[in-house]
Amino acid sequence: MLALLRPSSWLGSCLRGSCHLPSDFPQQRCDTSLVLVDEARRFIQDCMMRVGVPASKVRCISECLVVADYRGNFGNGLNRLDFYLSDLQRGHAKIDAEPSIISETEATAHVNGNSALGILVGNFCMDLAVKKAQNAGIGFVVAQHSHHFGMASWYAFRAAVKGLAGMVMSNSPPTMMAPNTKSASIGSNCLAFCVKGKDYHFVLDMATSVRDIGALEWAWANDKYIPHGWAADEGGHSTCFPNLALRTPLLYPAGDHKGFCLSAVIDLLCGVLSGAQYATRIPSDQCQPSNLGQVYIALDPDFFLPDFMDRLDDFCGRIHDSEPANDSETIRLPGELERMHMSYIEDLRALPYPNTILERYRDVAERLYVKPIELAFGRCQSKSF
Amino acid sequence: MLALLRPSSWLGSCLRGSCHLPSDFPQQRCDTSLVLVDEARRFIQDCMMRVGVPASKVRCISECLVVADYRGNFGNGLNRLDFYLSDLQRGHAKIDAEPSIISETEATAHVNGNSALGILVGNFCMDLAVKKAQNAGIGFVVAQHSHHFGMASWYAFRAAVKGLAGMVMSNSPPTMMAPNTKSASIGSNCLAFCVKGKDYHFVLDMATSVRDIGALEWAWANDKYIPHGWAADEGGHSTCFPNLALRTPLLYPAGDHKGFCLSAVIDLLCGVLSGAQYATRIPSDQCQPSNLGQVYIALDPDFFLPDFMDRLDDFCGRIHDSEPANDSETIRLPGELERMHMSYIEDLRALPYPNTILERYRDVAERLYVKPIELAFGRCQSKSF
Repeated sequence: MLALLRPSSWLGSCLRGSCHLPSDFPQQRCDTSLVLVDEARRFIQDCMMRVGVPASKVRCISECLVVADYRGNFGNGLNRLDFYLSDLQRGHAKIDAEPSIISETEATAHVNGNSALGILVGNFCMDLAVKKAQNAGIGFVVAQHSHHFGMASWYAFRAAVKGLAGMVMSNSPPTMMAPNTKSASIGSNCLAFCVKGKDYHFVLDMATSVRDIGALEWAWANDKYIPHGWAADEGGHSTCFPNLALRTPLLYPAGDHKGFCLSAVIDLLCGVLSGAQYATRIPSDQCQPSNLGQVYIALDPDFFLPDFMDRLDDFCGRIHDSEPANDSETIRLPGELERMHMSYIEDLRALPYPNTILERYRDVAERLYVKPIELAFGRCQSKSF
Repeated sequence: MLALLRPSSWLGSCLRGSCHLPSDFPQQRCDTSLVLVDEARRFIQDCMMRVGVPASKVRCISECLVVADYRGNFGNGLNRLDFYLSDLQRGHAKIDAEPSIISETEATAHVNGNSALGILVGNFCMDLAVKKAQNAGIGFVVAQHSHHFGMASWYAFRAAVKGLAGMVMSNSPPTMMAPNTKSASIGSNCLAFCVKGKDYHFVLDMATSVRDIGALEWAWANDKYIPHGWAADEGGHSTCFPNLALRTPLLYPAGDHKGFCLSAVIDLLCGVLSGAQYATRIPSDQCQPSNLGQVYIALDPDFFLPDFMDRLDDFCGRIHDSEPANDSETIRLPGELERMHMSYIEDLRALPYPNTILERYRDVAERLYVKPIELAFGRCQSKSF
């Protein structure tokens, strides 16, 4: 699975394409250190086991988080670990819970996540959707009592590697404002869609806001300003300061009312239809279980066409052939920039993390009595890196 | 069905809400005339029958177009009639064709529209999706060899009136540019989602571009400028002139790359998966059949929850309770502004059309030897109206 999933922090340049890496690429920061992939995985597993997660489950959790970083989706990688640990320790996510099926038909299932970690619920639901799609052409699974599940495309990709199209949606705590309002009435809900051809892969993973909370957290961790139009301060006015934006998150919807309406549709399916919480009923803090809702859809193209993959490749090729506004730019499909990031990580042979995040996890390691993250070169890398 | 469907030309103000009607409301134009609803319906039916459409089919065609105007979605109402007539006369849409099922499972169907008019294909497919959803929880129908089908929410609403959630997507000729390109690589594909509660109705109908072609055509018919950021001229530069924008339509995606990616997902499902044309394979002119692809999804909430309607009403209420940025504004759900427009039409007891459109249809009436549209007050209304 260490292939083909997407960084929300770069979606802005996703189709623009460039020979240069985006300006917020970690290696261009002076306060970044390298961590070997196996070491990041080891640390996540150690922490998870320390809070009581069975050894049989920690592997898929660490894989999901490390792949997010590997693809440049830093907001949903290691950055999420202490949030999960904290929810497990408070009992809002249950250490040994397993998702269960409430009801099902040949093509649908209603799943109770039973407050298991979102990653476990997500894997369970998408595998179920794939199984149903292989029998009925489509598998449509809605989950209640789920939890933050990291990178949505992780699950959509589970369907794609089996030759199916995967679509995943999740609701989230209210962080997004309707146009011309100044309070958050809905989450910056996410949508992922993955499908694989022979030559091309289409891997979309997007929030319905201009940028998601992870991008703000990443800007804050990197001590960077954010552009106007991403988020508002507590008074509802656009701000450039990620710390102000993170205090009471008020994100702007992508495409104004259209992003907001799309988010509402996602919440209607994920939250209202599943029996989970929705809109402002989802707690914004960690004082109570979030009870998120998610939708997992798998579609088997073999039920519709024999040459779907060829057609998909042709479709992707046509997008590539669009005339760029500027000759120096090439057009990229959703997911391509992430593949570039993966090549970059393979060259580095390690993951670059801001030292602020690594310091946070030094504290976590101390608190949990686990071995701290070991840097790839034995010390913090600074400007010389 | 004369209830609850949406005007794309107002989606911009859909959630903003206002006690005043939008500034491009037809009654504020000096070159608008009133036509009784029955008269508009009569004219559409007469024209359709004159080109050979059987009498048994013309009623549902006129209904779909008149409802679009009734809801203020003028781009997909009477405005579309001559496009349909022209396609029927060229043989690109078949007068007596009926959609047929290529293959199906309990929950899915692959339909061949056989080049019937899109409205006939749409009604057939959504009714099939509803039937499947009532048995399997979900009905997922993809159609190839379809045609422009007017207002997407018309079909989603067919599911909603039966207590289901309806979702409809269609691809369309390439009119939308990927960010940082200057050619149209994909259609401004549309998405509609409708679901009814006890007190609220959620009726979303949106194009993935900032505004759709219908909005440009309407601006042109009303002799109005369009704002920058809607569309580009032939050189790929943003323009305020609808005539330049309509020459080689180059629409901007809503939310930049996110709108574009969403449009690509719609085309992957509607075009690539269905076996229809897609992306730049869809002809931009009327020289050959368009062979559009569409997806119709129906979901039966009873398979998931017993109290879905109550939860939906609560969800909608929470959106309404968002704190407005300005006290004078109220928050409206998708579909509410359309209901306002319907009340307005009920007060008028007629539909307001720009005289430029009515003149176009005088020519059509002359060409087809049908009785021209009779104005509600026997003459063109001008500034005094």
